[in-house]
Amino acid sequence: MAATRTLRIGLIPGDGIGREVIPAGRRVLEALPLSTKLQFTFVDLDAGFDTFKRTGTALPDKTVETLNKECDGALFGAVSSPTVKTAGYSSPIVALRKRLSLYANVRPVKTVAAARSPVDLVIVRENTEDLYVKEERTMETAHGRVAEAIKRISERASLNIARVAGDLALRRQRVRDTGAPSIHKRPLVTITHKSNVLSQTDGLFREAARKALADAKFQAVSVEEQIVDSMVYKLFRQPADYDVIVAPNLYGDILSDGAAALVGSLGLVPSANVGDGFAIGEPCHGSAPDIEGRGIANPIATLRSAALMLEFLGEEEAAAKIYAAVDANLVEGRLLSPDMGGTATTEAVVEDVLKRL
Amino acid sequence: MAATRTLRIGLIPGDGIGREVIPAGRRVLEALPLSTKLQFTFVDLDAGFDTFKRTGTALPDKTVETLNKECDGALFGAVSSPTVKTAGYSSPIVALRKRLSLYANVRPVKTVAAARSPVDLVIVRENTEDLYVKEERTMETAHGRVAEAIKRISERASLNIARVAGDLALRRQRVRDTGAPSIHKRPLVTITHKSNVLSQTDGLFREAARKALADAKFQAVSVEEQIVDSMVYKLFRQPADYDVIVAPNLYGDILSDGAAALVGSLGLVPSANVGDGFAIGEPCHGSAPDIEGRGIANPIATLRSAALMLEFLGEEEAAAKIYAAVDANLVEGRLLSPDMGGTATTEAVVEDVLKRL
Ligand SMILES: CC(C)[C@H](C(=O)O)[C@@H](O)C(=O)O
Ligand SMILES: CC(C)[C@H](C(=O)O)[C@@H](O)C(=O)O
Repeated sequence: MAATRTLRIGLIPGDGIGREVIPAGRRVLEALPLSTKLQFTFVDLDAGFDTFKRTGTALPDKTVETLNKECDGALFGAVSSPTVKTAGYSSPIVALRKRLSLYANVRPVKTVAAARSPVDLVIVRENTEDLYVKEERTMETAHGRVAEAIKRISERASLNIARVAGDLALRRQRVRDTGAPSIHKRPLVTITHKSNVLSQTDGLFREAARKALADAKFQAVSVEEQIVDSMVYKLFRQPADYDVIVAPNLYGDILSDGAAALVGSLGLVPSANVGDGFAIGEPCHGSAPDIEGRGIANPIATLRSAALMLEFLGEEEAAAKIYAAVDANLVEGRLLSPDMGGTATTEAVVEDVLKRL
Repeated sequence: MAATRTLRIGLIPGDGIGREVIPAGRRVLEALPLSTKLQFTFVDLDAGFDTFKRTGTALPDKTVETLNKECDGALFGAVSSPTVKTAGYSSPIVALRKRLSLYANVRPVKTVAAARSPVDLVIVRENTEDLYVKEERTMETAHGRVAEAIKRISERASLNIARVAGDLALRRQRVRDTGAPSIHKRPLVTITHKSNVLSQTDGLFREAARKALADAKFQAVSVEEQIVDSMVYKLFRQPADYDVIVAPNLYGDILSDGAAALVGSLGLVPSANVGDGFAIGEPCHGSAPDIEGRGIANPIATLRSAALMLEFLGEEEAAAKIYAAVDANLVEGRLLSPDMGGTATTEAVVEDVLKRL
């Protein structure tokens, strides 16, 4: 009999509805059946705009250190951005991704069994470079200010992220091979770039991704390409055609919000920031100041993010239990939050999912 | 009685179906009724991948010079990009935009009267800078190659493009005020950026756009903002909420393909590259090698691009005639090309539109 594994999870609610959904993520982990042989301990950690206002930094060193030294994974809620330029503020999630070397951002977008136009894809977004290196400068010129930012693409990160995409395509195929119903028959990775304009940076991404996926290991995986503008078009016209989409950081950011629109609500879409042996689950939605404090935020993106985190910590079975419970809630469609056209509270949705675990 | 105006138009078919749709654009201009008091002369000009293969340059100087010296406007078809890295090749349309200072790319996306979910928006894309400055370099490092590209945003170009957006919002309102049916009641400009990550470059775009639109001239125009990822999401969820969207070059590129997906086919969506006193109409679709030479390309994007060009050359009435003829063809829905689910040839669609002029 396998021993029980104890995972220590950092909880970083952040701002706004992050504080309402992260507790839901904790509860679903605590409610996992004994058969999963998982136990959890939790540590509350600060980050976000409120933290910035209180302490002068949006990402306290203590948060990073605790994650680094004590934790196996984490759940991150959402953070508010200042609506006016605020000196010294910078996004804590972007910093966390870099400081913890979470080089892959994985965003599955999937309709449940009952959907009329089925979607079952995952966006694998490079998570550390591209314009997110945030190297910017501003110059005064005779014609006003001119600002520049660096878009950096490395061969190494591009090879890495393409391998993550390839591995995921194979993993998804293995699940299909066990008989799980799916709209896909074969594993496919679609490389997204804009090398028709950016021949060196996006050209390098494209070339490295092609090279990584040409490895014998990925022989079963079909590889295609889409220019990013055309990818957005195709995503909306023929979403069922896509399995795994791999993209540089910024395109991945944009594509995943686009894909979220296909399944009805950002409130359904999870993500995981993945590094070697560490993962942070993070709902794709923002801090939603408009509904903050009303107890009606959709917890599903966070519940699925907790599952995704487990998946990347090697606990695929426990993850599958959470996915199945969430899907059952959605298929029944009785207890839905307002973003889904229902009237259920965060609490009611969580209770319904826990009941189905 | 006003004198007849003669406009000299450069015709740049480019590659693939560009060669099938640009003749359609010429025909619709020639078929405009005498009452418009417009006459046209045409000059055929080279550009594209075939030109590159033949001459070693994708944009011959002669094309640029002729446009500069002789022409009032132009129609540009589409160009193919090489599918493998090709030394010396670079996109002629990107170069043309810069060399002719066509600083605005205007892309209206509109459903016709009969649509179930109506869309009536226009994307105003900055057309000369951002990552399209194409300043790239590649370095060899101990860990493989690293490539960098510059994203450049200037205060001047951002002020300019926001003014174009504001003017367009006012112009659209004037048309509505004459009683034209519309889903919009008031003029709205939505500024799109990613200043939560790119505080200097996109921060400058946002600030300059805000400043330009704060001018008393634009008092009637409401101004909102959307972060680009969220903009893509909203575009798909609530497209009817948007009137004029203004964006830096690359986001504008991506958003306009996304918006095109809303109206069923890229084959419907026109654009104009606009500078002071000069405009190039350009269908948003590409050279479509898959259907090249079969005579089934949808000419509507090009017909509308010809109208859009006229609009920016000050010929709003003539433009309105083309738009109305195209809309009538679509509303009737009898002669549609295959991308629209029909079986009509390019020729049949053009004939039907000309008949309605
Ligand atoms: C909040 C923002 C910095 C972030 C990003 O751009 O990565 C968000 O949009 C996301 O997708 O996680
Ligand atoms: C062909 C390409 C260089 C071009 C662009 O990115 O501007 C196209 O996508 C467009 O939108 O006109």
